[in-house]
Amino acid sequence: MAKDIQKERPSYRIPINKVGIRGLRYPISVLDREHGHQNTVAQVSMFVDLPGELRGTHMSRFVEILNGFRGEVTYKELEPILRHMQEVFDAECAHLEMVFPYFCEKRAPVTKASGYVDYEAIFEGSLKEDHYDFLLGVRVPITTLCPCSKELSRFGAHNQRGYVTLKVRSEQFIWLEELIEWAEGAASAPIYSVLKRDDEKEVTEQAYLNPRFVEDVVRAISERLGKDSRITWFRVEAENMESIHNHNAYAIIEKQGPAFNGKGKD
Amino acid sequence: MAKDIQKERPSYRIPINKVGIRGLRYPISVLDREHGHQNTVAQVSMFVDLPGELRGTHMSRFVEILNGFRGEVTYKELEPILRHMQEVFDAECAHLEMVFPYFCEKRAPVTKASGYVDYEAIFEGSLKEDHYDFLLGVRVPITTLCPCSKELSRFGAHNQRGYVTLKVRSEQFIWLEELIEWAEGAASAPIYSVLKRDDEKEVTEQAYLNPRFVEDVVRAISERLGKDSRITWFRVEAENMESIHNHNAYAIIEKQGPAFNGKGKD
Amino acid sequence: MAKDIQKERPSYRIPINKVGIRGLRYPISVLDREHGHQNTVAQVSMFVDLPGELRGTHMSRFVEILNGFRGEVTYKELEPILRHMQEVFDAECAHLEMVFPYFCEKRAPVTKASGYVDYEAIFEGSLKEDHYDFLLGVRVPITTLCPCSKELSRFGAHNQRGYVTLKVRSEQFIWLEELIEWAEGAASAPIYSVLKRDDEKEVTEQAYLNPRFVEDVVRAISERLGKDSRITWFRVEAENMESIHNHNAYAIIEKQGPAFNGKGKD
Amino acid sequence: MAKDIQKERPSYRIPINKVGIRGLRYPISVLDREHGHQNTVAQVSMFVDLPGELRGTHMSRFVEILNGFRGEVTYKELEPILRHMQEVFDAECAHLEMVFPYFCEKRAPVTKASGYVDYEAIFEGSLKEDHYDFLLGVRVPITTLCPCSKELSRFGAHNQRGYVTLKVRSEQFIWLEELIEWAEGAASAPIYSVLKRDDEKEVTEQAYLNPRFVEDVVRAISERLGKDSRITWFRVEAENMESIHNHNAYAIIEKQGPAFNGKGKD
Repeated sequence: MAKDIQKERPSYRIPINKVGIRGLRYPISVLDREHGHQNTVAQVSMFVDLPGELRGTHMSRFVEILNGFRGEVTYKELEPILRHMQEVFDAECAHLEMVFPYFCEKRAPVTKASGYVDYEAIFEGSLKEDHYDFLLGVRVPITTLCPCSKELSRFGAHNQRGYVTLKVRSEQFIWLEELIEWAEGAASAPIYSVLKRDDEKEVTEQAYLNPRFVEDVVRAISERLGKDSRITWFRVEAENMESIHNHNAYAIIEKQGPAFNGKGKD
Repeated sequence: MAKDIQKERPSYRIPINKVGIRGLRYPISVLDREHGHQNTVAQVSMFVDLPGELRGTHMSRFVEILNGFRGEVTYKELEPILRHMQEVFDAECAHLEMVFPYFCEKRAPVTKASGYVDYEAIFEGSLKEDHYDFLLGVRVPITTLCPCSKELSRFGAHNQRGYVTLKVRSEQFIWLEELIEWAEGAASAPIYSVLKRDDEKEVTEQAYLNPRFVEDVVRAISERLGKDSRITWFRVEAENMESIHNHNAYAIIEKQGPAFNGKGKD
Repeated sequence: MAKDIQKERPSYRIPINKVGIRGLRYPISVLDREHGHQNTVAQVSMFVDLPGELRGTHMSRFVEILNGFRGEVTYKELEPILRHMQEVFDAECAHLEMVFPYFCEKRAPVTKASGYVDYEAIFEGSLKEDHYDFLLGVRVPITTLCPCSKELSRFGAHNQRGYVTLKVRSEQFIWLEELIEWAEGAASAPIYSVLKRDDEKEVTEQAYLNPRFVEDVVRAISERLGKDSRITWFRVEAENMESIHNHNAYAIIEKQGPAFNGKGKD
Repeated sequence: MAKDIQKERPSYRIPINKVGIRGLRYPISVLDREHGHQNTVAQVSMFVDLPGELRGTHMSRFVEILNGFRGEVTYKELEPILRHMQEVFDAECAHLEMVFPYFCEKRAPVTKASGYVDYEAIFEGSLKEDHYDFLLGVRVPITTLCPCSKELSRFGAHNQRGYVTLKVRSEQFIWLEELIEWAEGAASAPIYSVLKRDDEKEVTEQAYLNPRFVEDVVRAISERLGKDSRITWFRVEAENMESIHNHNAYAIIEKQGPAFNGKGKD
């Protein structure tokens, strides 16, 4: 019978921080504040640490574990998946990341015409021995109108689609919808999927009356997050696909909180 | 000695339209109207047809042929490369595609501050027996300001970065710079890499005074191209990264000219 | 009251081939041979033609139309959506494209361990006056093992992940699962999401015993498609992420059938 | 005269970690061990910090600064650019990142046929008050052959293209070519752009004789880096585009050295 190569001693007994799978697409169902749950498709990464004495990881087990938990994926479900990963791999640390489109029904501001806006949601769970850590994130499209352009110009002001990327660590439950509202509340105007004539007038004028730099956007969101006692760490990024340039304007504020797992890559 | 598998008879004697390599990155030098030439890096595809009697193609020869022509890549150079491909592969048809960043120095409208704007250039050459065909293309970032939003709103108007993608077939030499000028001339305003305060005022007001739908943009460029006797076929696309939506607005006009090589994928 | 700018006369009375929206993400439900239906998320494009006399299109209507048909999206549903687009926009031609991840449960060859494999499915529907046209497509990951490398080498043979992209036009219903089976049947081996030790042995040996060039893959699929009386046109592409190069090997066969709508970009 | 909006007081006096531009494409010239220098095209990001008292940054100055240093971009040039950024923006911290294709001529192992292999190079420079920090990185395509598949199977072994991403902090000069050699030395076999028949035999057999998990790859490189006294911090990632799956295998080792600038995003 063939040897189990993964259980061999490696040439170099160096511990590996994370080993596992990336780029796995997987159908999931997540909590939805309005409708109970929502079906979507995630890009999944799953990693464990590997001690210096073991050569390899049995990669097929990651997908098997995920299969065993198929169905609702929520904050509560991430921890049992991570615990199962720790057990199956006999690992100290387990990591699970999911990025997926998330849809919210949004009504146009005047006509109340309804449409689905798509956001990019991010779940990052880690379990280090007994310490569970969870980061919730979302990427929110917004309209930003340049305060400088408005001030300088006799009429008009350049504006564009921008994206806010928001990640928070919290001790208590937070809805994706809350993060989305905070991001949209800091914009010159929110974006919509359906806007009729009266709505287009409304959002155009709203944006003109609320000019925002990327600097303004990340500050307003940080101010809001700093006041929420549930949130112990956050990072806020804003990036404008500038309408007058072929490059982007960008700003980031990161709250230096009690870092836990030295996430170098999120 | 090992058999030459590629020369075997295939299981199914079906001719193959195109076989070759894709995604090869390659440093090239191209003609530049202002500076004589310009160094850049291309994504290269090279294909030949394969008759039903031959099982395979010797893929390494594509890169060897390209190596043999290293240096200036121009309209004139594409044809000899294609002829060499025909000979080496004993093929009826040869195809060569290159997509690469191309930079033009552009001065801001008021302060004349200088900066490099990056465009995406496209070369597509084909040789079918003795018939040489060349398509020149470019992707140009522009500003578009919505005529409807301007008309409806008491102040301001939504605008955004858009991209014009332009491809032409012509009997005579055309500069990339000419295509770029036509695309920018149909925009609400061109984009720049450096804009000082007085320039930002100027382009903001220029865009407000020249509202353009994607429909307006592709029509204005088509009108211009239709009057150029050098151009026998063209396709013009405009796509707006709408500032009020998370999806894009898009329009395309294609002149139905004397199609030659049934390019299904460009 | 503000003018309806879109109904104005354009500066240039040039008809526009396609105008509409791109990059709209939308949750859909599609037919699934095993489970009845499947929830997924599509990238949607919707276009109509625009006559020379009208300046613009009311873009918000595309999303409204899609909202009206929310639910099951199948071959049958595409045509009513397209008819509704024709009516609402008073258009001669309507186009709808959807690209979405599609999952099939697949059992490992020896242990029968189950896992979900993700494919990229493509729906392209067009309605030109009364003529309905539908293209079904899918992108299938496969394993390919190089016949030349096997022949030349004393042991081993380079192999890699490749992708088959398959599009067909047919008069009758065809399952996505059928296209997937044909693509996988032409590979050195299919790919799986879960493979245990005995399975990995099996697929490794299967691939070694079935070496395939990209040329072999597209020919075998074309042979199969040519024998299916339901299929009136097809295009088959194979692309290998070569393990010994940083560029890809590529082949394409397109059956020159009765072209209908001059799709320039698919 | 219009106000300088950027100099206003912001609504929330929160310092911003980084503000600036992203996604700027720029032609650069870098040091090349064989040929003195090499022309290429970079994706550039430039950021400074912004104190709580200032509302905004004058974004056009980033591009102007870069224009002023046009020409050779090397380790030595990054620091003066960063100093200039500090001065112009009156900032405490300045950051500059460049990612660009980098080509090395590589000869096939048997026939010595020559070809250019493309790598993705990364420069990350930071200046925090007087402390200059530089990270050098590169992404290297390699061949990996699965030890488990080889052990289990009677013949053959699955293999694939993988990518090593390597970043180092060092006190002294290191060539990109050194990092590339270390990455390729840990692979089952290096990749090439031109391989003739005798070469393909050689690399196929070499890979079969040197099976490597992603775990083996990151350990071998870490072992090598740990012995180089110039290097004070490193991170090594390996990712396989598995030929038997549609997802990737991944491993990372990060040396926990004296962190300097809390880079959260690299």
